[in-house]
Amino acid sequence: MAKASQRIQRITGGGSDGWDLFYRAKDLIRSGVEVIELTIGEHDVKTDPAILDAMREAARAGHTGYASIPGIVELRQAVAERTERLTGVPTRAENVIVTPGGQAALFATHQFVGDPGDRALFVDPYYATYPGTIRSAGLEPVPVTARAEAGFEPLEEDLADAAEGARSVLVNSPNNPTGVVYSERTLRGLQRVAEARDLWVISDEVYDSQVWEGRHLSPRALPGMEARTLVIGSLSKSHAMTGSRLGWVVGPEEAIEWLWDLSTVSNYGIPGFIQDAGVFALAQGPEYEERIAAPFARRREITQRLLAGQNVVRAAPQRGAMYAMLDVRATGLSGEGFALQLLEEERIAVLPGESFGSAGAGHVRIAMTVADEVYEAAVRKVLELAARLAAERARSGAHLPQIG
Amino acid sequence: MAKASQRIQRITGGGSDGWDLFYRAKDLIRSGVEVIELTIGEHDVKTDPAILDAMREAARAGHTGYASIPGIVELRQAVAERTERLTGVPTRAENVIVTPGGQAALFATHQFVGDPGDRALFVDPYYATYPGTIRSAGLEPVPVTARAEAGFEPLEEDLADAAEGARSVLVNSPNNPTGVVYSERTLRGLQRVAEARDLWVISDEVYDSQVWEGRHLSPRALPGMEARTLVIGSLSKSHAMTGSRLGWVVGPEEAIEWLWDLSTVSNYGIPGFIQDAGVFALAQGPEYEERIAAPFARRREITQRLLAGQNVVRAAPQRGAMYAMLDVRATGLSGEGFALQLLEEERIAVLPGESFGSAGAGHVRIAMTVADEVYEAAVRKVLELAARLAAERARSGAHLPQIG
Repeated sequence: MAKASQRIQRITGGGSDGWDLFYRAKDLIRSGVEVIELTIGEHDVKTDPAILDAMREAARAGHTGYASIPGIVELRQAVAERTERLTGVPTRAENVIVTPGGQAALFATHQFVGDPGDRALFVDPYYATYPGTIRSAGLEPVPVTARAEAGFEPLEEDLADAAEGARSVLVNSPNNPTGVVYSERTLRGLQRVAEARDLWVISDEVYDSQVWEGRHLSPRALPGMEARTLVIGSLSKSHAMTGSRLGWVVGPEEAIEWLWDLSTVSNYGIPGFIQDAGVFALAQGPEYEERIAAPFARRREITQRLLAGQNVVRAAPQRGAMYAMLDVRATGLSGEGFALQLLEEERIAVLPGESFGSAGAGHVRIAMTVADEVYEAAVRKVLELAARLAAERARSGAHLPQIG
Repeated sequence: MAKASQRIQRITGGGSDGWDLFYRAKDLIRSGVEVIELTIGEHDVKTDPAILDAMREAARAGHTGYASIPGIVELRQAVAERTERLTGVPTRAENVIVTPGGQAALFATHQFVGDPGDRALFVDPYYATYPGTIRSAGLEPVPVTARAEAGFEPLEEDLADAAEGARSVLVNSPNNPTGVVYSERTLRGLQRVAEARDLWVISDEVYDSQVWEGRHLSPRALPGMEARTLVIGSLSKSHAMTGSRLGWVVGPEEAIEWLWDLSTVSNYGIPGFIQDAGVFALAQGPEYEERIAAPFARRREITQRLLAGQNVVRAAPQRGAMYAMLDVRATGLSGEGFALQLLEEERIAVLPGESFGSAGAGHVRIAMTVADEVYEAAVRKVLELAARLAAERARSGAHLPQIG
């Protein structure tokens, strides 16, 4: 084979991605073992038949040819209105470009903010594709640790320390994997660093419909931040449309024009009938999004209740998104060690916190994506296993301070 | 606004893209003027309801979640089988990755073949997005002129002259805009240059179902070329599915693995229900593709018949694809001048050859994408206008050799 580019070879970063557990669980399932799967951030409901009907109708009406590359104006307008409603920032269709999913929006914005060799910050723990997305643009990914002890929110001084020579900082609130919703204080720190270093803020807000405590605050809503913020959105989580690949970027009109050029050469727009389905989905309004989010709200309550009944496992502030990030360090195991034991003994698959970066070490991420009763039983087993391991550890004396 | 990357600012290349005529025609149509639109390479039929039914069925059956990123195995297998049938080259599912359209495949392959600053060849005249696609990867686009006088096929010596320090060469046969189908001789020349310079051949074969004379020959089918050829394919032209955005790359298994990494971070796969529709479409077999191509075969006959009845306009060898590339230099006008006059006087919109690069100068491209009678009447008018302009030119003495 002729040579592959350095760029493409760098995407995976070379190291283990910590997803061995995920593949181990898949193998077990394939071999016939019953496993409770709590690894993937995908609803336990399918896309609404009414949305599929709208898609079908659009296709049958002939919206099957090349569609407008940045998105049909009705869809861009609908995204603008939703953005304005959720954030209060005046937003027009010209501030929106539609992309084939939120991941494509993450990709496009990183192509936009910097050139090969430039530094691009992201917050650790992070969604699995972030470093590869940054590397695929030839940028140098610079993690900024958000410590469990700081509630998994990035501190201004840590951002400032990393920001020299950077072009962008990628944040994600409500957060995957931690469930944290950034405070206004965190966002103001972010703003000061972004302004001091002339950074773009790429704000992944795909979980903006899933806030259980407080409210979603977009960095774009802080005064003056509109000109340096690119918001990533998607119908995947808010409308249970993961497979429709309909995402977007909201940003300054001039940035959207540049991203349009990139879309022309990188995907040539998304299917018109999917765009029409998106218009229909967004027209269902906020009540619909609440309905899609409701199961996760319930399961978050279940999680909180079960956690309150014990004192071994601690949890990240679970204020948003469809995950519970549990601190299992009291067991003496790593997140990966705990998750493996959980899989082997209880046939429950969760992801090690280490899969989401070093700041997630000693944690496991549970996706709240199975029926309430199944979910409750699974979390009980997680907590029981943790309690048992912690008790064994105590008996074996591992709780004594180590000397030397 | 904070700064945009150099990379994204370079995509358009700064110059006029020669598509003014296209926008002028759109303006006329919007203002209520009746214009015969022969600019866009899109069928005058919509996507087949049977294919849309298959899509609907897949969606209703629940294929609405995250789908396999490189494509479901049934689709990759179907593409592999079609490739093998058309080219004779043994091809497996592992040689195929599915992309959101042929344009995304062009983008991905250029991300794959080289790093910023590397040279990437393409043949002029060319499809409009080629140089921008190459620039978006930070590569330097190097045109290789395929002269009208050489039947618009690139000569080995011209390829060789341009190939030093290059990483790839992008070819397109059957060709848009010229309708040329590359001869085996041309492909053997290409092979010698590619082997001598260790180039990737990126072979855009999206018109492979539209061959009117001779047969389609893929560079991948030449002995030894499998290891350095990446074939771009799509259901857009072969199955009238332009809006479904279903394309692919066929290449060495190792290359496909790298492209999988890029898909993970750039689009995260394409909708599962569209993949299922693609499997259904491909299962209709070669007869179906012939049926979709038949209108263009008929209109190509019309074109040939009308051209034979005059001697002012010459045509590129019209052996494939859905276009007629007409040489109007006998009128003394540029392609753009002729197209503008045609639009203003006859309300017929065609694209100037200059829109497709300097080698297309003095030509116009007619998309054979309207009903036969309308098409025939339009081509008659094109030829009449050309005859009138050439006669006027002769009367005014412009045919005399210029002195000095």
